Amino acid sequence: MSKTVDLNADMGESFGAWSLGNDSALLDIVTSANIACGFHAGDPDVMAQTMKLAVEKGVGIGAHPGFPDLRGFGRYRMHLPLGQLGNAVRYQLGAAQAMARVAGGHVRHLKLHGALANMCAENYEMAHACYSAALEVDPEIIIMVLAGTQQQSAVEALGCVYAAEIFADRAYNDDATLVDRSLKGAVIHDADLAAARMVEMVQEGAMIAQSGNRIPTRIDTICMHGDTPEAVEIARAVRAALEQAGITIKAFPHG
Amino acid sequence: MSKTVDLNADMGESFGAWSLGNDSALLDIVTSANIACGFHAGDPDVMAQTMKLAVEKGVGIGAHPGFPDLRGFGRYRMHLPLGQLGNAVRYQLGAAQAMARVAGGHVRHLKLHGALANMCAENYEMAHACYSAALEVDPEIIIMVLAGTQQQSAVEALGCVYAAEIFADRAYNDDATLVDRSLKGAVIHDADLAAARMVEMVQEGAMIAQSGNRIPTRIDTICMHGDTPEAVEIARAVRAALEQAGITIKAFPHG
Amino acid sequence: MSKTVDLNADMGESFGAWSLGNDSALLDIVTSANIACGFHAGDPDVMAQTMKLAVEKGVGIGAHPGFPDLRGFGRYRMHLPLGQLGNAVRYQLGAAQAMARVAGGHVRHLKLHGALANMCAENYEMAHACYSAALEVDPEIIIMVLAGTQQQSAVEALGCVYAAEIFADRAYNDDATLVDRSLKGAVIHDADLAAARMVEMVQEGAMIAQSGNRIPTRIDTICMHGDTPEAVEIARAVRAALEQAGITIKAFPHG
Amino acid sequence: MSKTVDLNADMGESFGAWSLGNDSALLDIVTSANIACGFHAGDPDVMAQTMKLAVEKGVGIGAHPGFPDLRGFGRYRMHLPLGQLGNAVRYQLGAAQAMARVAGGHVRHLKLHGALANMCAENYEMAHACYSAALEVDPEIIIMVLAGTQQQSAVEALGCVYAAEIFADRAYNDDATLVDRSLKGAVIHDADLAAARMVEMVQEGAMIAQSGNRIPTRIDTICMHGDTPEAVEIARAVRAALEQAGITIKAFPHG
Repeated sequence: MSKTVDLNADMGESFGAWSLGNDSALLDIVTSANIACGFHAGDPDVMAQTMKLAVEKGVGIGAHPGFPDLRGFGRYRMHLPLGQLGNAVRYQLGAAQAMARVAGGHVRHLKLHGALANMCAENYEMAHACYSAALEVDPEIIIMVLAGTQQQSAVEALGCVYAAEIFADRAYNDDATLVDRSLKGAVIHDADLAAARMVEMVQEGAMIAQSGNRIPTRIDTICMHGDTPEAVEIARAVRAALEQAGITIKAFPHG
Repeated sequence: MSKTVDLNADMGESFGAWSLGNDSALLDIVTSANIACGFHAGDPDVMAQTMKLAVEKGVGIGAHPGFPDLRGFGRYRMHLPLGQLGNAVRYQLGAAQAMARVAGGHVRHLKLHGALANMCAENYEMAHACYSAALEVDPEIIIMVLAGTQQQSAVEALGCVYAAEIFADRAYNDDATLVDRSLKGAVIHDADLAAARMVEMVQEGAMIAQSGNRIPTRIDTICMHGDTPEAVEIARAVRAALEQAGITIKAFPHG
Repeated sequence: MSKTVDLNADMGESFGAWSLGNDSALLDIVTSANIACGFHAGDPDVMAQTMKLAVEKGVGIGAHPGFPDLRGFGRYRMHLPLGQLGNAVRYQLGAAQAMARVAGGHVRHLKLHGALANMCAENYEMAHACYSAALEVDPEIIIMVLAGTQQQSAVEALGCVYAAEIFADRAYNDDATLVDRSLKGAVIHDADLAAARMVEMVQEGAMIAQSGNRIPTRIDTICMHGDTPEAVEIARAVRAALEQAGITIKAFPHG
Repeated sequence: MSKTVDLNADMGESFGAWSLGNDSALLDIVTSANIACGFHAGDPDVMAQTMKLAVEKGVGIGAHPGFPDLRGFGRYRMHLPLGQLGNAVRYQLGAAQAMARVAGGHVRHLKLHGALANMCAENYEMAHACYSAALEVDPEIIIMVLAGTQQQSAVEALGCVYAAEIFADRAYNDDATLVDRSLKGAVIHDADLAAARMVEMVQEGAMIAQSGNRIPTRIDTICMHGDTPEAVEIARAVRAALEQAGITIKAFPHG
């Protein structure tokens, strides 16, 4: 049976006078766009423009909420009460829904950003609080989770529709966690290597750790990074390799 | 035929550790609450709490967007491009819709705040940009406008459902503008005087200027202020006087 | 020989339209004011007003930098790189110096706020980074530290002038840490009890733990809280009891 | 007698994860750097880095305060009370002074940014409020003003040391105002043309309007823009042409 996978990338990360990323090029490659909601990046105008582009190119729109920390781009851990986190997710999702509606689309999925995502990958209660908050706003929303983490445990407990993601350019440890960025080989900069890895993982239905060990997992979507110089090149190579291997590139849900 | 009028007040203007206003008391008096959306006041937690209270007390929920200026409480004029204003209104309205949904209610109306409202009262294009932005997000939303201003001209041109408001505690000039705050008698601090004035204006269907001149106008709602020491007292007196005069107090639309 | 002690309180925590605390009353009681610098509370106007009052009342001015988190009042832990923390301290201190100069005074001391202070009480490297940053801006500045914590270890290593503080209204564990707020007796609400405790601790030169154990410590200043209803009452009682016991109330340094 | 002129450019306009401008290249060309202070652009880390570079390259450090509007980059007009403006200038200048001290330099001049500068060019009271606020913080600071505007009138009334600037790439009307950006020829994109114009103006001691009319003026410094693609090229061409014409390029004061 033919395999199907979605490709996603973070977008809409410009802010006011400051541009970031290469959204237009990435929107020709991916099938899902995770669009910043103004707390860690993005602003209402950037959201409007990015969503309009996504609608034009037929790319699925996702809300990408993060910590309220523009200065730090949502990359630093903040220890906020769960109730406050839930309301921050609701607020950002609602704002994204309005912007998507005006752009002629709708928010189909939600993915957490940066340090908020990392903390929720380790902390079941935080993940549960954020995702249940999103589902109260829209029970149909698809939650995008890091495969094999507490994020996935939380959506399974919530019984909601979700998409499990793996990274195109990050090496895995044997326990499905990411190899620390400070270690050699943690980030894959070679487009061909990243592409070959993704084909292998999707075909085997497993994360392949640096050790060569297989960690069977559901793989619905592959995360492409947009903020490195080689990002677009890697994204193109991954897409081409998947297609050549007969894997269908398609926005989830694939059911 | 019996007259009907709505009573509205700004609410949810606390922020983080800082409390402001007397929302709980006002929610027992008014029929419409204009709830700050986080740009000039309010935050996601304050919005959640205020909307929950409004739902419990059966008070209509309104989004109350303002300029992105917490420090200035949205009270200072900012000259932003119309497109940016429109997106700021859409974003705030969307956030409010999500918070209202989770509170078990929905955003029924929209009223602009502070300097944004004042500028739109004078500037047709600004009013049109803000209101059409809101209507793109929700074509059914009721726009609350300052009677006799460019705000009202804009909603009439847009052909949308709207509610025209007058102030309980502000004196009017003969051209329907407000008497400048620096002038004597501009702000009415006496509860009985404010109450008697409101009964008269609603019964006559006219703003009564300081000069005594009548300016016929549609009156759907009366704005109660919540940020002065005597605010709650004035609001109670106005409500009591209207009821005693046989005027029905009811959330719009009254049609 | 007669004992001498300074009394300090956090101030200038209003922001824009939002008022907080009772600065004017506290300034009649304390000898040192820790004034928020605009990152977690305060704004340039509030700083200007508070510093002017402090100068008029002869109270020592301190910069009170916190995390860049207005919404959370600097109360939530943020994990920022040390270099970024150092620059945040330098920036806030510099701003405070300018405001103090215009008010006719100068910034004599620095005390960290909220979660930043709590993290530095536990983490020597963080405390060292923040304090050395402040000393680079002003080598003469007096650092106010929580007695018996990593804050004190850091200033001792830096060899700078410092003032060690104890809390008027918080109970201590045997290891000099604060009793967790969730436990009974952690916060002292009774003014007479707080006052008697302070006299005893200053006279003995020791923190007295809940167990009755003595932890000998340098005590240069006593922290009065300003954000509880009974705060001013406790502060007055502590000051009166200290004076009655023959302890001199005087701004540090006491050398 | 040989002419002398300073060259200045805005710098330190990156923010958090977002880079802007080409500060390193410009610092090899200009003699004065106007460094953003965190309200409209810049952050404490960007300030620290930019000032360190300026000190290394022997470029004079200026504080470049703007409106508190990161989203709008300080480009939109805000109508703030004069007292609030003064405190905002004091706060930003103080922060810049601390960052400069740590970088081994000091803040030698102050130039207003964006819409704040434009409003002060037209409004004597605003200019006076901002400049007198800066002088209260540092009576020795040199104020950089737009030649022939209310900014210059204000510094002349204040009797302080100032530097008058003209633009390398903007056309002038006969009344010394800038040609509106929407009109043809308002912005000069040709490096050689800009360079020739600057030599002529400095040699004649006059702004040369689009009409060819001469408006005699004091010229202490030339403003180079850093935010257009051709900015560095224009800056290099202007500097080379001035040097070739025997004009000395040197940081003010030239007295």
